Amino acid sequence: MSVLTLPPGATLGMLGGGQLGRMTALAAARLGYRTHVYTPEPDSPCAEVSAAATVADFADAAALAAFAASVDVVTLEWENVPPETVAALERMVPVRPGAAVLAVTRDRIREKSFVNGLGIATAPWRPAHSAADVAVAIAELGRPAVLKVARLGYDGKGQVRLGAESAPESAWHELAGGHALDAVVEGFIDFACEISVIVARAADGTLRSYPAVENQHEHHILSRTIVPARIAPEVAAEAELIACRITEALAVVGLLAVEMFVTRDGRVLVNELAPRPHNSGHWTMDACATSQFEQLVRAVCGLPLGATGRLCDAVMDNLIGGDVERWPELVAAPNARLHLYGKRQVRPGRKMGHVTWIAATPDSEPAR
Amino acid sequence: MSVLTLPPGATLGMLGGGQLGRMTALAAARLGYRTHVYTPEPDSPCAEVSAAATVADFADAAALAAFAASVDVVTLEWENVPPETVAALERMVPVRPGAAVLAVTRDRIREKSFVNGLGIATAPWRPAHSAADVAVAIAELGRPAVLKVARLGYDGKGQVRLGAESAPESAWHELAGGHALDAVVEGFIDFACEISVIVARAADGTLRSYPAVENQHEHHILSRTIVPARIAPEVAAEAELIACRITEALAVVGLLAVEMFVTRDGRVLVNELAPRPHNSGHWTMDACATSQFEQLVRAVCGLPLGATGRLCDAVMDNLIGGDVERWPELVAAPNARLHLYGKRQVRPGRKMGHVTWIAATPDSEPAR
Repeated sequence: MSVLTLPPGATLGMLGGGQLGRMTALAAARLGYRTHVYTPEPDSPCAEVSAAATVADFADAAALAAFAASVDVVTLEWENVPPETVAALERMVPVRPGAAVLAVTRDRIREKSFVNGLGIATAPWRPAHSAADVAVAIAELGRPAVLKVARLGYDGKGQVRLGAESAPESAWHELAGGHALDAVVEGFIDFACEISVIVARAADGTLRSYPAVENQHEHHILSRTIVPARIAPEVAAEAELIACRITEALAVVGLLAVEMFVTRDGRVLVNELAPRPHNSGHWTMDACATSQFEQLVRAVCGLPLGATGRLCDAVMDNLIGGDVERWPELVAAPNARLHLYGKRQVRPGRKMGHVTWIAATPDSEPAR
Repeated sequence: MSVLTLPPGATLGMLGGGQLGRMTALAAARLGYRTHVYTPEPDSPCAEVSAAATVADFADAAALAAFAASVDVVTLEWENVPPETVAALERMVPVRPGAAVLAVTRDRIREKSFVNGLGIATAPWRPAHSAADVAVAIAELGRPAVLKVARLGYDGKGQVRLGAESAPESAWHELAGGHALDAVVEGFIDFACEISVIVARAADGTLRSYPAVENQHEHHILSRTIVPARIAPEVAAEAELIACRITEALAVVGLLAVEMFVTRDGRVLVNELAPRPHNSGHWTMDACATSQFEQLVRAVCGLPLGATGRLCDAVMDNLIGGDVERWPELVAAPNARLHLYGKRQVRPGRKMGHVTWIAATPDSEPAR
């Protein structure tokens, strides 16, 4: 054990109180760690299973200081925690992953530049700070394309499609609403499938990658993850290598989820990075010796990383909004493992839970 | 789903705040249930992972009423909750298992009489309420024998061995200390091994049995569970049948753990019953589709019971007292699944955690 090791009984600080924090807290508890969650949200899913909760704004300096004094290390389940919050905490307590990683992953321009700087391909893209930039980008990249905010976009929010008829000015106005804005234009990719790879990196630099999985989205929200991805073994190996290279270059301590496109001609293009547990890794709870959540706890507490091999094939279906009403059927299905997040209000598009179909192929289980 | 079904989001009341409650709360959270623990112990292992905690004496009527009003169903992790507490709660909220079950299992005299009344064998025994009763029992059962308190004994506490030299008077005085006491004398069993079977029973009467496992004790505390028990298949089947018959006869809603002796000539004798999750079932978290804790949640919330088959062989070692200091080695072992209970103070004989060795045989892992 290194000097960085936090023994069981130590307290893990969690920034953000959603389901990713909740499942991390459950994994931490199994190993004897306490979780203290910090979130602006009252009655958060994470607080219900945590030893302590601070409900306060991320800008509340006094609350942050008290939180820092009560925990041994801080991690996060939401990468858009304000950078000032992370910087303030880092002066008081280790934050893993830290501000340097988040500064890259919270900004599409920096993120894509970083990836390309490693010689790793992304979809073609251009930075855009005005309607004029959008017009130039379309001229260079062609149509269709997508205009996306550089920061704080998620699940399809903060995006405008640039189709055959779209005028750069109106698209820019729709996104920016007359304010200054950093954005990117991404060229169209005729992809065969979307995949992701989650990599864990320990404080001593050890890397462990989970297998590449295939992701299907509906309305820009992850709907289904198929394990393993239905791609050639050499493509999967390349994707895992890419994810490991980025994780190492960023010097992440914790997890990095790397979303990628596989083109029809077999190229792998990086789409997005997320320095936290990822929805496409939920299957690891039911089909790996070490779940992504336990792996995060191991990495940030300085424990050796656990095994990441796939024990069986699996299909993970998100339960979004009213999907959760299927729970009676799912809890009775012998090969289903149901996970619900304890959210009281059902809202359209809200992630309410997920189900992992064990030893399932994509065609063996009913679609949502 | 039956009308008795409590949907996810409902609140499970837990009497007792130890590791059995903690692991039940973690299983409940996965299915979207909240846990509210009631325990006299501040900073209990269960409270650290529960949505709410009441720290109060079991005789506190106002605290019990508030607790009952805040939960949808009550279960327990400690069968020695005072019967008055359970009776008071039952007037306000369903308690599963209920007072009728606990009245039998909390008293060795009633428990053994109940089992024998079903035509199921126990070790030979006699009730004892005085030194004279002990003398008669020894005359009938022979020596060695064991004198045990009828109520509130556990882990070897409340027992006196009756060896070749023991005088009934001094043994009785050692146990009773001059007070009135109900006790039993149990005859010596030259057993080949100790086993246990955990059975779940749903509110609709459905039964599901886990496989018979073998238990090894040190200083009267469970040290190791070997899965499956090293007994003939017909003996295992008889043990499972016995456990199911008792569970059904008691009309348990929840779990019943049945500890048994297997004699050298292959007879199965019931030793003790526990109407709750049991230490010998901890392996189910790592080697069954449904853990005993999830199964308890399913039973008391009116969900269909889950699959109980053994997915692989396993060996479970308790981490007692200073054993927990082995955690760095255990957390690094690829086939070990470490579970720690978040207890701050290490004390001799205190259950601090356990480790499940996956796909292990009794000889393939180091003894403690």
